[in-house]
Parts: sequence; C-alpha cells; structure tokens
Amino acid sequence: MTGTPTVAVIGLGLIGGSMARALSANGVDVIAYDRNAASIDAAISEGVVERAMGAQLSGIREAEIIVIALPGDAARELIRASASSFAHAMLIMDVGSAKQLVIAAAEAAGIGERFVGCHPLAGDHRSGWPASRADMFQGHRVFLCPSASTSDDTLRSAQAFWKSLGSVPIVADAAAHDSHMAWISHLPHIISSSLALTLRDASLSHSELGPGGRDMTRLAGSSPEMWTAIAHENAEAITRAISAFEERLSALKNAVTRRDAESFQLQFSAGSAWSSET
Amino acid sequence: MTGTPTVAVIGLGLIGGSMARALSANGVDVIAYDRNAASIDAAISEGVVERAMGAQLSGIREAEIIVIALPGDAARELIRASASSFAHAMLIMDVGSAKQLVIAAAEAAGIGERFVGCHPLAGDHRSGWPASRADMFQGHRVFLCPSASTSDDTLRSAQAFWKSLGSVPIVADAAAHDSHMAWISHLPHIISSSLALTLRDASLSHSELGPGGRDMTRLAGSSPEMWTAIAHENAEAITRAISAFEERLSALKNAVTRRDAESFQLQFSAGSAWSSET
Repeated sequence: MTGTPTVAVIGLGLIGGSMARALSANGVDVIAYDRNAASIDAAISEGVVERAMGAQLSGIREAEIIVIALPGDAARELIRASASSFAHAMLIMDVGSAKQLVIAAAEAAGIGERFVGCHPLAGDHRSGWPASRADMFQGHRVFLCPSASTSDDTLRSAQAFWKSLGSVPIVADAAAHDSHMAWISHLPHIISSSLALTLRDASLSHSELGPGGRDMTRLAGSSPEMWTAIAHENAEAITRAISAFEERLSALKNAVTRRDAESFQLQFSAGSAWSSET
Repeated sequence: MTGTPTVAVIGLGLIGGSMARALSANGVDVIAYDRNAASIDAAISEGVVERAMGAQLSGIREAEIIVIALPGDAARELIRASASSFAHAMLIMDVGSAKQLVIAAAEAAGIGERFVGCHPLAGDHRSGWPASRADMFQGHRVFLCPSASTSDDTLRSAQAFWKSLGSVPIVADAAAHDSHMAWISHLPHIISSSLALTLRDASLSHSELGPGGRDMTRLAGSSPEMWTAIAHENAEAITRAISAFEERLSALKNAVTRRDAESFQLQFSAGSAWSSET
C-alpha cells in the first residue's frame, strides 16, 4: 500500500458521518454506504465521500480500512454476512458502545486478526448525518478493544488511525470496557429516558423545563435504535447498575419522606462533593 | 417615594448576588447582608453593594424593597425574627424554590399584604457570590406566588421589579407551583444526586464521565444547603414524583433484564420523542 489508504465507512450517522468528515479533511479517500440515500447524496455533494457503495457493498474490496458505524445488532449481522468481502482490508473496526458481542462476531467470521472493537467517547444527543461534524473526536478518548487474535500490527494501525482524527486511544479489555460503560454511559441514559417518560406521564411538556431539567433529559433524546442495540447487548451489566442506582434512590427517597434532614443533607453533600471533583 | 428605591438584599449567594448585580447595573442603590463577610466585602469593592447591613439588619428600615435570598428554612426564620423591622418596605420577596411555607410564614408575621413569594427559574450548578452574574435572569421565567392577602399594588410592583431584571413574570398559585416544581426541578435534582452517589459507590471518578454522564451529574453539584431546605419543605410532592419515576425505571429495567427489545425500544422511542419536542 502506498499513499493514503481508501477508507470504507458503513453507516453515515452521527459517528460514521463525523469520521467520514474528519478523514476527508485529512485528505483520505472515503467510500461509504448508508441505507438512507439522502445522507449519501449529501455526503457526496459536500465532497466528504468520494463514491457510494451499493447495498451489496460493491467496491468494498478497494478499502484498506473498513469502519462499521452501525448499531450493535446491525454491525454483527453485517460482519456475519459480508466478512468474506473484507479480504483486502488490513484494519476493520466498529464503533459501538458495547464490545464483547461484536468482537465475538468478528472472531467467528474469521476476521479477528484484523479487527479492533472501537468506542469513541464522543457523541451528541442529536443523531444522523446532519448532526455529524469533523471535530467530533478532537481531544476525546476512544477505547480500543482487541480480540484474542488481533495482531499487534492491527492494533498499532488502529491507534494511528484514531490519533489522526484527534482522539486519544486507550487499549482496554472488552469485558471490563462493557461493564465500565454500563455505569458511566448506559445507566445515565436509562435514567434520562425514565425521567422523560415520568414527566410525559405527568402531562408536562419538555418546554416547561428549566436548565437543570433540560440537562437531565438531553440524553433521552438520542437515537432509540442505537440504545435498543446497546441495552440488548449489555443487558446484564446494565441491570446490575440500575439495581445499585435503585438502592441509592430509595435511600434518598426514604430520608425525604421521613423529613430526615440530617440524612438527606449528608447524601446531597456527598453527591455534590463527588460531582465537583475535576 | 421618589427616584429609584433602595433595595435590601439578604443573602449574596448565587441568586441574591445576581439580583444585586442586576439591580446595581440598573442604577439602583443596593444594601446587603451575608453571613460570609468575604462576599459582602467583594460586593462592596466591586461597587455592586452600597453598604453592608450588620447581622441585626441595621439599616433595613431605609429599604423600600426587601429581597430575602436564603434557603427556605433560613428565610422563614428571618421572617419570624425580623418582620417587625420591615415596616417601611412596600415590597418583600423571597426567591426559594418552594413557596407554600414561606408564604404562610409571611402571613403569620403580619407582612402578607406586602409579600410575594418569588421563584426565578434560573440558576447554575455552582453556588455563592463568585458564581453570580448580572444577566442571570435575562429572558428566564420567574414565578410570582401571592399570599391570600397580597395587595394588587404589591403584586404589580413585584412584576415591574422582575421585568426590570429582564425576566418574564408568571403569577401562580403557591400549591400548584410547589407540586409543579417537584416534577420539573426537585425530582431531576434527586435523581442527579442519586446517580452521583451510585457512581461514587462503584469507585468511579467524575473525570471518567463522557459528556452525557456530565450532563446527568451536573445538578448534583449544586448547593447541599439549598437542596436540604427544598427537600424538607416540599417532601410530600417530591416523594410522589420519585415514586412515579421508580415505577418507570422499574418497567424499563425489567424490559432490559428480560432482553425484551420490543418493549425497551418503545420506551426509548417515546422518551426520545418527548425530549425532542421544542
């Protein structure tokens, strides 16, 4: 391989679209597929994507690097169905928020050596191509989870790839990553969704919220398809995290119900101290 | 009364301090008290406050307008102890997030006719004088809750006062206001605190959070003293709101635990639709 590689991006949503923009800004040739023709048309007319691949991923054999930027279930299905046409690629990555199942799918499809499960800690409550932006990854961490058979060369290529997008790669074990994400990302989303539904049930409208209530329901607005895949994939770890939260909420509720000011002041103070750490 | 009135601000925290700044920017004479001498000194040296009142509120008889910007319990205590020295004031207001008890305290102290319970829908997760700013209320709503004996003149003065700070006054019944706030403000804060404590228990640090987790724990960082007073004051309505949330969370958790994707997709979609309303 000489010069800059061709990168195939499958899925031009918030993350895939932002990767295509950042790659294109670096002078990389990007070919892409999205089931939504309008996203592909926009990406080509904006000069971000060189050519469209068809639904059969025609042209993917030209790609040295393949990025699968789909919800977890769709990513695994694509790997099962299409891994045989990834023969030419030296690096294959996904970008989902849970890593164990997609890595197992890559191993099962015989591409484990060239596969790295990636999870950029970036995002937005908005979704889709219109929300994508070239600086999405700038300064943000990205977790890189190798499979048991990922080669050292592949992992080094993945690190260089993400650094070129401005992010800070961190190599992590997939199981530890998924458990960690259940706490810091999946639990907050589940809570935000539950709060949105609670307020909706109480016949309140989103426009009645102040700045704090808006903060607390912002995550609930993100892609239901993506979160459905994550919840399915990481159900056990998420259930454990929700249970721990339920105990904490119940303790605080009991103190409020009993008007036990000493107890809830201690809890508010401890929560405030933790949240004010930098 | 001729010319601009003298306004006494008791408590130079986030809200009181911001009111003093906004009033001073409008050319109003502000006199103030805060138990923290450093806040008073800063406010005087920045030219925001004209003179300090002592702990006995010496000089408060000059004030035509009195703003009590203290946590709810301290505001009620101050009204009980000091209402007799408010004889000259034509308008007395507090700014707490729950209104029924403070209004009852004003009625009991014989100042109900000149009292309006106020709640500006503005704030910040930071607290204290250093976080205060003159444009805090610009474009934000403020709820004005009259007591049973508040005069029409008093209510009109309060409306004019808040408009002069750039806010949008909305007259509301105190009981309806408190119940409404339990949903849109107090419940989100309780949830944010519980999430912060859950993550702390799991040995996670705040710096490990991505942007979504930061949104969800920002409220938890706000003043424990203020929230202790609010939780005590509005305990019944808050308990009801937490119970409704617990049911919603439990339903979503059960769907995740059972990996019932159809069920949680429906819930995520409904929450997302509600949160995306403008």
